[in-house]
Amino acid sequence: MAQKPSIPKGTRDFSPVEMSRRNYIFDTIRRVFYLFGYQPIETPSMENLSTLMGKYGEEGDKLLFKVLNSGNFLQGVDPAILSEDNYTKAAPKICEKGLRYDLTVPFARYVVQHRAEVQMPFKRFQIQPVWRADRPQKGRYREFYQCDADVVGSDSLLNEVELLRMIDEVFCRLGVRVAIKLNNRKVLAGIAELVGAPDKLVDITVAIDKIDKIGLEKVNEELAERGLSAEAIAALAPILQIDGTLAERLDKIGAILADSEIGHKGVEELRFVTETVTNLGLKAELDLDVSLARGLNYYTGCIIEVKALDFAIGSISGGGRYDNLTGVFGLPGVSGVGVSFGADRIYDVLLGLNLFPESIGASVQVIFLNLGENEAVASLKAVETLRAAGIAAELYPDAAKMKKQMAYANSLSIPYVGIIGEQELADGTVTIKNMQSGEQQSIPVADIVNAVK
Amino acid sequence: MAQKPSIPKGTRDFSPVEMSRRNYIFDTIRRVFYLFGYQPIETPSMENLSTLMGKYGEEGDKLLFKVLNSGNFLQGVDPAILSEDNYTKAAPKICEKGLRYDLTVPFARYVVQHRAEVQMPFKRFQIQPVWRADRPQKGRYREFYQCDADVVGSDSLLNEVELLRMIDEVFCRLGVRVAIKLNNRKVLAGIAELVGAPDKLVDITVAIDKIDKIGLEKVNEELAERGLSAEAIAALAPILQIDGTLAERLDKIGAILADSEIGHKGVEELRFVTETVTNLGLKAELDLDVSLARGLNYYTGCIIEVKALDFAIGSISGGGRYDNLTGVFGLPGVSGVGVSFGADRIYDVLLGLNLFPESIGASVQVIFLNLGENEAVASLKAVETLRAAGIAAELYPDAAKMKKQMAYANSLSIPYVGIIGEQELADGTVTIKNMQSGEQQSIPVADIVNAVK
Repeated sequence: MAQKPSIPKGTRDFSPVEMSRRNYIFDTIRRVFYLFGYQPIETPSMENLSTLMGKYGEEGDKLLFKVLNSGNFLQGVDPAILSEDNYTKAAPKICEKGLRYDLTVPFARYVVQHRAEVQMPFKRFQIQPVWRADRPQKGRYREFYQCDADVVGSDSLLNEVELLRMIDEVFCRLGVRVAIKLNNRKVLAGIAELVGAPDKLVDITVAIDKIDKIGLEKVNEELAERGLSAEAIAALAPILQIDGTLAERLDKIGAILADSEIGHKGVEELRFVTETVTNLGLKAELDLDVSLARGLNYYTGCIIEVKALDFAIGSISGGGRYDNLTGVFGLPGVSGVGVSFGADRIYDVLLGLNLFPESIGASVQVIFLNLGENEAVASLKAVETLRAAGIAAELYPDAAKMKKQMAYANSLSIPYVGIIGEQELADGTVTIKNMQSGEQQSIPVADIVNAVK
Repeated sequence: MAQKPSIPKGTRDFSPVEMSRRNYIFDTIRRVFYLFGYQPIETPSMENLSTLMGKYGEEGDKLLFKVLNSGNFLQGVDPAILSEDNYTKAAPKICEKGLRYDLTVPFARYVVQHRAEVQMPFKRFQIQPVWRADRPQKGRYREFYQCDADVVGSDSLLNEVELLRMIDEVFCRLGVRVAIKLNNRKVLAGIAELVGAPDKLVDITVAIDKIDKIGLEKVNEELAERGLSAEAIAALAPILQIDGTLAERLDKIGAILADSEIGHKGVEELRFVTETVTNLGLKAELDLDVSLARGLNYYTGCIIEVKALDFAIGSISGGGRYDNLTGVFGLPGVSGVGVSFGADRIYDVLLGLNLFPESIGASVQVIFLNLGENEAVASLKAVETLRAAGIAAELYPDAAKMKKQMAYANSLSIPYVGIIGEQELADGTVTIKNMQSGEQQSIPVADIVNAVK
């Protein structure tokens, strides 16, 4: 019986046009990853739930897609546990696997599982879909691609420098002007120390992360609600209002944090990274943002966020350093730093700013019309000649009405139409029509490659 | 707490070396698809279970991976249904989505759902993973890629011709000698008619499909068990023993099936396709195999199967024509024909025959050793010069022991090592070592691109 077909909410089909645009983004990022010495890996879509659970916080656990055990998933399961009041406990009894939620945890699992073969420092990239049972909304999907590059097994700040240059290179190639915002978790720790609330690091960063959205006054209200003393809030204020050039702001915050060992170290790290990368010739704007916290539980050093300058949208890339990602899988002491590119937002930026190259639309260069069996077979030989020269070509498969065949060629923006009719068949020629200029010429079949090159 | 990390059985991690080999296969296939005028689409990993169920037979339904509904999946579910005796009925109550089982059903769903935008004939390709809850074994995985190309909306046999040439082109480029076996569902129907058992078409094809494995005698025994009369079995025997060249065998089977309208049509189709494609210059061996049935319920015309000539493994590609795939989604009368390439088996063939090009291993062309901060920063500038010329290059991030850095370069088979030490820093030079020949030369930094090209 016929069903009206649809796909699950939050998921998408990609048409040929969308695919060519998406591949343009993925190919650009992938080429830059290779150019910078990153190597591809892939991990399975399904991981053991035990690998995923507890890695993304309580909220993250809820957003994991769980895969029902195959076979009789109810065998041996106590029916008492299968009650609606108890569903979070019931799920792991009938599901051992989940869909990957990001690329970072599977990467950490990979490094530990394959530690015997992995050569450190390990520079890997990974471009694969991830799945989250988030409420679907504009720009937020339940299946989407992440493009991650990470180095593990090296403490050197030169990795941060290289990652910033890599971000720069990707957006240069895509033609997107960006600002790269930097912070350092050690600076945040220094700030917490300075205001006398080292145990309130998380509260402070959660609050000051909102400064761009809600302003200083509201941030201060929130800090008070979170238990910060009036003195602490007063001590914090100057830090949130630092101005000047990047170098000046680093000097100012360095002076403010002079008594905090960890804060001082954070400022020195930022200074080295920004000076070195500026010296290399960064095209992107570089900016210090002490309110930048991004997934704080994760990061231990540098924190990076990238915004498009000419298009209003959230961050289009981000990352940072994490010192103990593999510890949870039994391999402590492996430091890592990485960045992730948000393909869907980059797509929106390129589309909004009309930055997709025109050439990525058409794939077929020449289509031959089909004027009957003998003509079609002769056309196929011409098509083969073109393909042998690396030119994508095809024959309209049916001897349909001319109008229908031309409509097909037009709808696919194919630049050349080849015609072998009765006359051409007798002469050993082909008529080539340039679809843009409308010009037509009759040439020997043997000359066809040159005619459309 | 540390867990020993692992992945679900039947799934795989792919290392950089495996990725470069797999990408070589995918890239080759993708390029040929484009060359022949196929356009890419992608569909979501999860489909509604209603889209998937009932499309792959009873066995297929069992092999679908089902995704647990998010949130309280037990809310409103009658607890009585959640018993182990009843698990097949319970699953759809708690799972609305499933992982895609193949690329064909999602493609049919795509065509119907987007029929307003899709230009017919629609030539699409799709390279994506699929999931099956099969028992894992050597060469059989629970997650694996399919590479499909199909045309829908055209009855022309020229599509079959083009697909055969496309198969030929793919395996030529990969350097694999293959035999393409052909059959036609209409020939099978003619045979069933001839032996006076048109209702036994499925039984006949299931039995004769095994002739290569178990021989004529056992096939005849099975046919008798399946209710075929002795006369029918006797009438079938000559068909299974036809010999001679491809053209001779087509003539012989044509003569045998002369009285069956549908059988005759099948033979004529095979004759047109094989003659036309031979005329175009096929490199692969072309073979008629009336015992070839492949997923019969599906195919209505041409049936294609590809075997490697120099490596013992199952079929490495296959396909055929299906006349009513979209009917189940409410769009009848759309004929399609397509082929699928089995990437995992092709991988095994290329590895077994040592056909992977050597060049696909190394990605980075030059690595700079790290001899201290100033030297490293100078090296980064040289690295940037190389990258600007399109040459993948990197700097070892840490000032580690020379031996460790060289071991890294060796393990990644990087062909050139660049060294900027104290002396080079003073001179504005760089020492380049060719890792294969062991030769070293000192050159101005400005000449580096030419030195490693």
